[in-house]
Amino acid sequence: MTERVRIPRDLSNDYTEEMAAARRRFVAGHTGAALDHVGHYSIDPALVSGNGENFFGVAQVPIGVAGPLRIDGEYASGEFLVPLATTEGTLIASYSRGMRLLTESGGVRTAVVEDYMQRAPAFVCGDAVAARNFGRWVDEHFDQIKKAAESTTRVGQLAYIGQYQVGPIRYLRFNYRTGDAAGQNMTGKATLAACNWIEENYPERLEYLLSGNADTDKKHSGINMLLTRGKRVVAEAVIKNDVLKNLMGVEGHELFFARQISNVGSFLGGNANNGAHYANGLTAIFIATGQDVANISESHAGVTYSQLLDNGDYYWSVTLTSLIVATHGGGTGLPTQRECLEMLGCYGTGKVRKFAEVCAATVLAGETSLSSAVLHGDWVSSHDRLGRNPA
Amino acid sequence: MTERVRIPRDLSNDYTEEMAAARRRFVAGHTGAALDHVGHYSIDPALVSGNGENFFGVAQVPIGVAGPLRIDGEYASGEFLVPLATTEGTLIASYSRGMRLLTESGGVRTAVVEDYMQRAPAFVCGDAVAARNFGRWVDEHFDQIKKAAESTTRVGQLAYIGQYQVGPIRYLRFNYRTGDAAGQNMTGKATLAACNWIEENYPERLEYLLSGNADTDKKHSGINMLLTRGKRVVAEAVIKNDVLKNLMGVEGHELFFARQISNVGSFLGGNANNGAHYANGLTAIFIATGQDVANISESHAGVTYSQLLDNGDYYWSVTLTSLIVATHGGGTGLPTQRECLEMLGCYGTGKVRKFAEVCAATVLAGETSLSSAVLHGDWVSSHDRLGRNPA
Amino acid sequence: MTERVRIPRDLSNDYTEEMAAARRRFVAGHTGAALDHVGHYSIDPALVSGNGENFFGVAQVPIGVAGPLRIDGEYASGEFLVPLATTEGTLIASYSRGMRLLTESGGVRTAVVEDYMQRAPAFVCGDAVAARNFGRWVDEHFDQIKKAAESTTRVGQLAYIGQYQVGPIRYLRFNYRTGDAAGQNMTGKATLAACNWIEENYPERLEYLLSGNADTDKKHSGINMLLTRGKRVVAEAVIKNDVLKNLMGVEGHELFFARQISNVGSFLGGNANNGAHYANGLTAIFIATGQDVANISESHAGVTYSQLLDNGDYYWSVTLTSLIVATHGGGTGLPTQRECLEMLGCYGTGKVRKFAEVCAATVLAGETSLSSAVLHGDWVSSHDRLGRNPA
Amino acid sequence: MTERVRIPRDLSNDYTEEMAAARRRFVAGHTGAALDHVGHYSIDPALVSGNGENFFGVAQVPIGVAGPLRIDGEYASGEFLVPLATTEGTLIASYSRGMRLLTESGGVRTAVVEDYMQRAPAFVCGDAVAARNFGRWVDEHFDQIKKAAESTTRVGQLAYIGQYQVGPIRYLRFNYRTGDAAGQNMTGKATLAACNWIEENYPERLEYLLSGNADTDKKHSGINMLLTRGKRVVAEAVIKNDVLKNLMGVEGHELFFARQISNVGSFLGGNANNGAHYANGLTAIFIATGQDVANISESHAGVTYSQLLDNGDYYWSVTLTSLIVATHGGGTGLPTQRECLEMLGCYGTGKVRKFAEVCAATVLAGETSLSSAVLHGDWVSSHDRLGRNPA
Repeated sequence: MTERVRIPRDLSNDYTEEMAAARRRFVAGHTGAALDHVGHYSIDPALVSGNGENFFGVAQVPIGVAGPLRIDGEYASGEFLVPLATTEGTLIASYSRGMRLLTESGGVRTAVVEDYMQRAPAFVCGDAVAARNFGRWVDEHFDQIKKAAESTTRVGQLAYIGQYQVGPIRYLRFNYRTGDAAGQNMTGKATLAACNWIEENYPERLEYLLSGNADTDKKHSGINMLLTRGKRVVAEAVIKNDVLKNLMGVEGHELFFARQISNVGSFLGGNANNGAHYANGLTAIFIATGQDVANISESHAGVTYSQLLDNGDYYWSVTLTSLIVATHGGGTGLPTQRECLEMLGCYGTGKVRKFAEVCAATVLAGETSLSSAVLHGDWVSSHDRLGRNPA
Repeated sequence: MTERVRIPRDLSNDYTEEMAAARRRFVAGHTGAALDHVGHYSIDPALVSGNGENFFGVAQVPIGVAGPLRIDGEYASGEFLVPLATTEGTLIASYSRGMRLLTESGGVRTAVVEDYMQRAPAFVCGDAVAARNFGRWVDEHFDQIKKAAESTTRVGQLAYIGQYQVGPIRYLRFNYRTGDAAGQNMTGKATLAACNWIEENYPERLEYLLSGNADTDKKHSGINMLLTRGKRVVAEAVIKNDVLKNLMGVEGHELFFARQISNVGSFLGGNANNGAHYANGLTAIFIATGQDVANISESHAGVTYSQLLDNGDYYWSVTLTSLIVATHGGGTGLPTQRECLEMLGCYGTGKVRKFAEVCAATVLAGETSLSSAVLHGDWVSSHDRLGRNPA
Repeated sequence: MTERVRIPRDLSNDYTEEMAAARRRFVAGHTGAALDHVGHYSIDPALVSGNGENFFGVAQVPIGVAGPLRIDGEYASGEFLVPLATTEGTLIASYSRGMRLLTESGGVRTAVVEDYMQRAPAFVCGDAVAARNFGRWVDEHFDQIKKAAESTTRVGQLAYIGQYQVGPIRYLRFNYRTGDAAGQNMTGKATLAACNWIEENYPERLEYLLSGNADTDKKHSGINMLLTRGKRVVAEAVIKNDVLKNLMGVEGHELFFARQISNVGSFLGGNANNGAHYANGLTAIFIATGQDVANISESHAGVTYSQLLDNGDYYWSVTLTSLIVATHGGGTGLPTQRECLEMLGCYGTGKVRKFAEVCAATVLAGETSLSSAVLHGDWVSSHDRLGRNPA
Repeated sequence: MTERVRIPRDLSNDYTEEMAAARRRFVAGHTGAALDHVGHYSIDPALVSGNGENFFGVAQVPIGVAGPLRIDGEYASGEFLVPLATTEGTLIASYSRGMRLLTESGGVRTAVVEDYMQRAPAFVCGDAVAARNFGRWVDEHFDQIKKAAESTTRVGQLAYIGQYQVGPIRYLRFNYRTGDAAGQNMTGKATLAACNWIEENYPERLEYLLSGNADTDKKHSGINMLLTRGKRVVAEAVIKNDVLKNLMGVEGHELFFARQISNVGSFLGGNANNGAHYANGLTAIFIATGQDVANISESHAGVTYSQLLDNGDYYWSVTLTSLIVATHGGGTGLPTQRECLEMLGCYGTGKVRKFAEVCAATVLAGETSLSSAVLHGDWVSSHDRLGRNPA
């Protein structure tokens, strides 16, 4: 293309069916791709304003239902039917099987044990002493900084500022409560306001970046695992050994033996979690319910901890250390996404902890199922039967 | 619910519109959620066989188009319009801006530099000596093990077996070429066959788990970053300083200064990558094109390396160390997903490296855009303008 | 040996020359090793009481002197002659060369920017909710817990308790100020007292381990790098480009180019620091001055951050994130060790920050020297000339 | 000091008692420190040539003897008395107690399961494609590169070259067998020769650094843990539950419960090992036997793996993944150091694997002792009794 190709846009109102269709024609014309299915949707393009630019259609991602899953959490209570949007065969069947195991064992206890969202600007000072002294000044002026940050938001609350110094750089990691929103934008805006206040009031000249990559946004990190990003949520259950034998064909002591092997492999490999496939179920719920799916990068981090009980039953817990979810804002209000949140009774304000608990319980279900299948030896055969094995 | 609730299923043929509708009624009845939009789709439920169980509808995820992006790769060559399925406002506009920067600077060079998919069984031997000797036997019988593994697949090829020992456990990490498929199932099946062969032929009794969590599947890990999982793909560009100034309002030397800060933050935090938001663009392409989106957990790992050139231009590279993608099999053949792959000329066999290059080039575009915005200070304001800020 | 061999011990007073000689005879008799040199020392065995059991002699570790090194720190100020106990040829010459470079560039600025020692018991509760609630109770009773902890020590002060939960386990990481002692024992004792107080006063039954390996004692860890263990100390200098050229034969821009390569290698490898050989100089000072040398495992962690200045000079900083040192207690009072601390004006109370600054400045000197040598290509040849190359 | 202070040196022969004394006078004069004890030694300064510059005395580090420890290894066989040079009170007593536990349980099995030493130059190519193609050329010319490398050494053998690419940088990690030497210098020299050969023979111009920090020398790293640096050595034992109860007052099932807690803490913290205090015993042996003690940074990495047996006995293994030791060259030939190696029957050529086994067995002994003490609650009280608690 000698001349710059321009995607059609209407500067006055770009979120219309006309413009979506114009872009489909444009793309089809330039690439030869038919966009018939992409153009088939029930959502009003006007709704997409705020959720994406240059809208021209939708991905239709199949959703299956898994469950019921009995949860006995602080916010989630009862039996849940969980919508999973995925294209990986066997996944829904596998999670459903794990949900049955947990439900027949009496259900899953769940709890959110910590809750923070971060933005971490980096301040570059003249030298290390200046950076340390700046850090002290920040501690001393926390109340004013908090006020400046919170002036930008009705919901967000600045809980504390972690400080980490390297050379003359002082990383300030602002930790917020963000209500029912995931809060990355809210915290970005609040932190910018805080930085502006600091810049104006600090007696010396300061240079800073709004993010110095110690947040850490849209990427797994050790700091997130330790200090929590989003929700730190635990799902735990005591699995009855006889139910385990009947449904899965394995026993608690076998799973516990395998856990030791898996812990070692995970420690050696430097894994983001020591579980089997946390990411699978999480991703499927995230897509179905309008979460920011890129947050899977952080959200799949966690730790499995288990114990074999004297009676042969098996205590199994999953702790998601960085679960970033929302029930309000972002993509949660789009039509199919909202319907899926409503399936869980998790749409809107006041629901985010309930939703986090459902996510963690679902992850635990998937862990029990896949781990048993790997141990029992039917993992490959079930993929052959239910999955689209490409070769 | 006193009696066990059962999701409707038709054991003879579950992938029909009738069954999908039956499940929607069931879910709606049990949860009170309307499923009108979820039930609106153009795909034939029969197509979902192999891609998910208990199908009852679709997530409609909005797709926008970004570009054009000029790529001068080994497989991808020309200008591309990239479909991004996301609900995060500003993301598509931001990637598009980065694509313009790169395209006006002459485009992106791309290359796949390594390519492996793994399955890592753990063999537990009698003691450490036995485990080490077992490992030697495996080396000596590689050709036969390879033959056994490859007997299960037309496409997969066993390249080498990495070995990692802890105590009496020998982790064997089977590394395969998997053609245009991502290959997790293919390699699982092949490795099971290999393990069976080993078990039958090894003179001593062996105990093994098909996966000991050193693969590492569906989770970020250090071993993946080092030794590659999926494609190791590089996108690199020299960004002209005057284009950078005009489009982004920043200069190369400023970006390079910020890079040093960001490298330190990433090293300190134990980040899965030292970039800005690799996961955002990748996830949006993955959803649009039918990738196994849970693989974002591994695929977002990587390393940014850059240099400031003497003339003020800025060399910028992104290396994705564990990009897991397919252009064949899995969800790639579903209707909207296929259309999006066709937009890129990447549908079907022989296209996976081209697609990997497009993914990496897109990531690079997003890095240039967000990093510039953070530096220039308009990151927050653009989210206010284009994003759905929930508080 | 059919009968259990017993090392000679005198239960009434084991720290005598007689018992040392008896053990030398015992060891020589059982192993055939002559222990003539081991038995040659000037220290009084009585002094070793509290520093080691079953004393039978000494390791004579050669010490060389490096310097002078000009330091312009908060506590260390002036030119220092640094004792380095090592058996690695070229090391002292290399550090000395770096010290000259730094001194001729105007010296090194140093500062301790954070200071904590930890002990991290793990409390296992009934479930995740109980563990979270226990954590809140700990926060609410911080003053009383602090009082209980501090009742065991004249020096130690409990600064804060970090909390990290996984499943039903609540890791409490007690962070103390420990004055001029490294403080591992002091904090162990204080934390035990705190745990006893907690056990007695918490309304529910608790189970705990005094250390759950989140301290993390005697091992490198991510948590130490982030949250500091011992001293977080920075050494920084602006190295004049002409001095660099004259002494080292390299230029600032070359070092900066190499830094980018080294940062990538370190990030990819999962390195405990991104420098060249922090551990070398540190270990040599530690042995000379009676530090607990096993703490090298934690103390060698850190981050190098540098910038190329517009005039070609090179800003170079080293941040040791977990430097564990003492100038009082432990081995610091033994005769040769005390003499070496006195060489630095660092013996006794009130000197530990000064000593930490000397350590960091020495590390920086070694970094400049080795990095230049690798770049200039004389690293191997100098080892050939000065080192004992064994093959 | 207005004029540059110069440490006395004799360019014709600096390794004499006269020069050592001259330097002591110089240091004493400039610093006021008496160096009486430092000047008391039995070693001939001429011996220090090759082990350190500017020699002026010795550190007298107290050595105690621990044991006997029964080892049933591939190279180490029988009962060993282990010299531990340390200033940390209780340490020797604690290791000795663990040795008794292991010996009374039947002893420790040991084995070296992998053995490599590395040097990792970084080649910077024109772009990613060029770097990948360069890597292929290296593979194709491995035999010639090996020949060039091995031309510099009688002992070293190049086993394989690992390749890791980021952007246009190709890190080549040369893996050698180094006989009884640790081999860092040997491999540096050999790799320089290999790089020279590559530079001369590669058809395009190349730029490289002799180390790009992916080796990784003198620092802990994930790559070392995975791919072995030095010796990968396992020590394992089945500890009888009744012996455990009698000697330690704890039982196997209690230790196993604690192991689960400790595994979680280690995974969460990003620890270099999941053990209690590997570094303590290792450091003490290293100092006693003339190892390069800075290698503790790498050598303390490892993995503890254990299982509770059905009869209540406890299987415990320690795998050191990066143990860097020598029995020839370096400081091993110095008088006291040699005597300590002779105590173990480990001095000289052909002994390095035996020595590695002794190191690992000693580490295992220390793990059993400290872990039991922490569990039994006498860890603090024994430090009070035996250690020099500074506050």
